[in-house]
Amino acid sequence: MKKIKIGIVGYGNLGKGLISAIEKTDDMELVKIFTRRDPASFADDRMESMDNILNYKDSIDVLLLALGSATDIPEIAPKLAAHFNIVDSYDNHHNIPNYFKEVDAIAAQNGKTIMISMGWDPGLFSLNRLMGESILPQGKTFTFWGTGVSQGHSDAVRRIAGVKNAVQYTLPKREILENIAYQPDGLTNYETHDRQCFVVLEEGADPAAVTEQIVTMKDYFENYNTEVNFISEEEFLKNHSAMPHGGHVIRVGETGTGRKEKIDFSLELESNPEFTASVVIVGARAVHRIHNIGTYGALTIFDVPPALYSPFSHEELIEKYL
Amino acid sequence: MKKIKIGIVGYGNLGKGLISAIEKTDDMELVKIFTRRDPASFADDRMESMDNILNYKDSIDVLLLALGSATDIPEIAPKLAAHFNIVDSYDNHHNIPNYFKEVDAIAAQNGKTIMISMGWDPGLFSLNRLMGESILPQGKTFTFWGTGVSQGHSDAVRRIAGVKNAVQYTLPKREILENIAYQPDGLTNYETHDRQCFVVLEEGADPAAVTEQIVTMKDYFENYNTEVNFISEEEFLKNHSAMPHGGHVIRVGETGTGRKEKIDFSLELESNPEFTASVVIVGARAVHRIHNIGTYGALTIFDVPPALYSPFSHEELIEKYL
Repeated sequence: MKKIKIGIVGYGNLGKGLISAIEKTDDMELVKIFTRRDPASFADDRMESMDNILNYKDSIDVLLLALGSATDIPEIAPKLAAHFNIVDSYDNHHNIPNYFKEVDAIAAQNGKTIMISMGWDPGLFSLNRLMGESILPQGKTFTFWGTGVSQGHSDAVRRIAGVKNAVQYTLPKREILENIAYQPDGLTNYETHDRQCFVVLEEGADPAAVTEQIVTMKDYFENYNTEVNFISEEEFLKNHSAMPHGGHVIRVGETGTGRKEKIDFSLELESNPEFTASVVIVGARAVHRIHNIGTYGALTIFDVPPALYSPFSHEELIEKYL
Repeated sequence: MKKIKIGIVGYGNLGKGLISAIEKTDDMELVKIFTRRDPASFADDRMESMDNILNYKDSIDVLLLALGSATDIPEIAPKLAAHFNIVDSYDNHHNIPNYFKEVDAIAAQNGKTIMISMGWDPGLFSLNRLMGESILPQGKTFTFWGTGVSQGHSDAVRRIAGVKNAVQYTLPKREILENIAYQPDGLTNYETHDRQCFVVLEEGADPAAVTEQIVTMKDYFENYNTEVNFISEEEFLKNHSAMPHGGHVIRVGETGTGRKEKIDFSLELESNPEFTASVVIVGARAVHRIHNIGTYGALTIFDVPPALYSPFSHEELIEKYL
């Protein structure tokens, strides 16, 4: 079998997760990892400079963007979409509609295929929101995140003077989650989630002052029930260096005359970036096949027949899974 | 907007669920319900004799088969697949591959589209088995059913001499479900499920003899941990007339070097037939669209881009759900 040739742009947590996820498949091989740093500094001959990426146009089937959504993906993807089939995990929800239109036009004009926003949210959670509301049109959808690390909130705490290191966990409120069928529609995130911080202080910093700054921080912690814990650097490194995450998409709806039905899709992840990478990988398999049948432009998890995510034949899928 | 015109074959629990599910949509209308009984006996002018079904070839967009899988669907669907677009919920797992091939050939030759085995198992559970194993190729998949009524097991208990009425609930073993990440692969159904019966005895029947016949019944209860409860007819009608069901499809897998990731798709249903009907309905929407773009033959939940299940436009889907 001819393997699907994969390129990766970026060598952060997601990029490393992609390398490992490719190794777990039988039908993909890694060609190059492109970096904006000096590739010679890595002692890994799969590293290649971003400056040379177009030299690989014909030797890569699908390029995976392991880049940030704030500035990197919207800047880089439109340039690459004319030359490569692509999967990204673009997660700037607000800008997704514009981003989709932009890369759709570029890819379609150039006979390339790009799958955007593939991961778990956006991604698997989006799929379950769509399925839940389609199947149960009369009902309520709830999304819970966590227990998991929020990078944005952890960064915000680390910027406070006197904080040496910090991590912030988002926790779904258990009492809401467990009685979800009886919750009103339209609950806010602070009504459904708590926040928990583990903070290492600089020598001589005042814990009361740091706590006050955290719990009152606008847009991040204000309105939330926030717990702040001060710990030693040793404990921090030992117990708070992993990147767990997860959550639930729940649809509660009615059928017939008042029968309650509940659909709950949940994830418990020890490694958020490695799991996200595993979802991106199945997107790569689908994009390769969709491009091969001559379908070009942008697509999302809503547009892909699930059979294309699996390495198995249609006959095997029916036998194994249906 | 022109509504999708729906016909239903069969007027049992699933057929009634379909009528109610169509009423909850804005884009479908019910044309006729076809029955093998005398349509005049129903006092509902939507009832029509099965003998006249071909008269409706041109006035029905999608026909839904609310029929049993044991004999009705494999007998009737091949005859109708030449004349109608169809969705069924065929659930005889063992025979699905043959059935798919048979109706695929007939529908394709006649320019019709048929979606088979749509519901929750087969259906949504199948989809989640495929997704879980594709995303986490190194891992284990578990399917739990229940708490819910098994019609087959309830029937088996009712056939015992001295039993006036009975219902059998299948229960997932909580201690297995809650520690799923640590369970071995390949557990049998009796290792993961218990069985619970509520039985109304005929006057003078011997409870000990009935219990013995239940718990030792081959293929149904043998090897299982089975609880048998004897109750009054009054209690039976009051507390055991509903058709709840549900279950879990769980994929536990590893990413990177030994990180555990868990995907759990679960259902809690107050009405199994009404929920199944709600899933069949989104299949009807997809079949109508797929037929309209000129794709014929048989398909399954593995072959349908999820966007086609929703009444919303692609732009709306991206805005609302991604």
